[in-house]
Amino acid sequence: MPAVGDMLSAVATYAPHCPLTDVVSVKAPVARAVAERDLSARFVGGHPMAGTSESGWAATDAGLFADTAWVVASDDGADPAVWQAVAELALRCGAAVVPAGSGEHDQAVARISHLPHVLAEALALTGTASGGLALSLAAGSFRDGTRVAGTAPALVRAMCEANADALLAALDESLDVLSEARSALRERRSIEALTTSGHAARLSYERATRWEISDVVPGAPGWLELLRDAGRAGGVINALSAIAPVHTARGTIS
Amino acid sequence: MPAVGDMLSAVATYAPHCPLTDVVSVKAPVARAVAERDLSARFVGGHPMAGTSESGWAATDAGLFADTAWVVASDDGADPAVWQAVAELALRCGAAVVPAGSGEHDQAVARISHLPHVLAEALALTGTASGGLALSLAAGSFRDGTRVAGTAPALVRAMCEANADALLAALDESLDVLSEARSALRERRSIEALTTSGHAARLSYERATRWEISDVVPGAPGWLELLRDAGRAGGVINALSAIAPVHTARGTIS
Repeated sequence: MPAVGDMLSAVATYAPHCPLTDVVSVKAPVARAVAERDLSARFVGGHPMAGTSESGWAATDAGLFADTAWVVASDDGADPAVWQAVAELALRCGAAVVPAGSGEHDQAVARISHLPHVLAEALALTGTASGGLALSLAAGSFRDGTRVAGTAPALVRAMCEANADALLAALDESLDVLSEARSALRERRSIEALTTSGHAARLSYERATRWEISDVVPGAPGWLELLRDAGRAGGVINALSAIAPVHTARGTIS
Repeated sequence: MPAVGDMLSAVATYAPHCPLTDVVSVKAPVARAVAERDLSARFVGGHPMAGTSESGWAATDAGLFADTAWVVASDDGADPAVWQAVAELALRCGAAVVPAGSGEHDQAVARISHLPHVLAEALALTGTASGGLALSLAAGSFRDGTRVAGTAPALVRAMCEANADALLAALDESLDVLSEARSALRERRSIEALTTSGHAARLSYERATRWEISDVVPGAPGWLELLRDAGRAGGVINALSAIAPVHTARGTIS
């Protein structure tokens, strides 16, 4: 995100009319930066939910996107041909296209990506604060619960700070749950509500299945709202054939 | 823990003089229950840090304890011969013996075992609360951060509630960290302190090495204090040869 402004200014100067996408982990701030430079008409944001802790050419992996989710922003005003081009890019890389509004995307990743990082940092700090004995006893629950605290701090900071509002809302929800657990432990009440509902939540994640969106016609009346509704309900696009040919006043993009 | 009282009462009735250990996940409450039945003289508690989500004979696994930690309680007053017998049991199962006071054990496992479960439940609840889109986007950080929320709720509840005081202290430490992160996000300040210290904490865990305690002489002056000091500093016992023969007024236990 810190690099987006300068890059967009260069794009506005040298290539003001080219189709434009991005791979930044937040979408609404990027869309705002795009709008500030009058580039929105050719822009459809993207977020491939894949990556490693490596960077540079040597980290190239042709299979990186296989079976991952690639969010394609589906905000009102998106150009159908640009949307289709971005979706095709994701599909040709092997990813599944998840259509979402930029704001919804940011709220969702706050819950399932940014919040896990914040909790992992807190767990790592608390777990190691008392020294050697706890480290000798740490097993799978601590190892897995702190794994993403091993991510480069600057990367975690950049993605969390860029999505501060949505992360704050998700963090507040978790703090409410933890505060209730704290009260129960303190008052020697049962924490059954926590363990039962948390277990059910994990099972709902394990059992969640993506369903296939089909017969999308970019540019047809209400297409963006339909795509957002489908994405909100767990729908994804897995094949080029699911996207009907696009015919717009501007022609097709190949 | 809920089964300990009745079991100990039966032991007190039918086998009041046999050497006695246990495998419960908290140690101070068990030691108290033992003391209430005047069984402390023959008791040395234990906690093998291993297990699966399975139970019953069909879940038998001869390699379950390989390279795991088995805490052997080293509280003042422990009988050297019983302590040695329990340590040998752990070593013969393939585990490393970690000596610790019962109270210290409970504080350590609150940090690295019980707290991870509570945070995983909270993350599972928050991550799934908004429905399908977030589930479509959930990747490694959410999967790993919520893994132990898949544990049987009754088991999580039993171990957390039995260790409520120590867990409360660890939870409060994490809540302090999370509240500071919340304030930083809310006031648009940097969360660099969190990400940098959390990352360093995870690295300290990854790099922690157990060192070998040697020349332990159960029954020698100050032996229990020496063992506790060693365990507190990350020391473990890996071999029967590290434990010198025991000669006590009561003879040896084989």
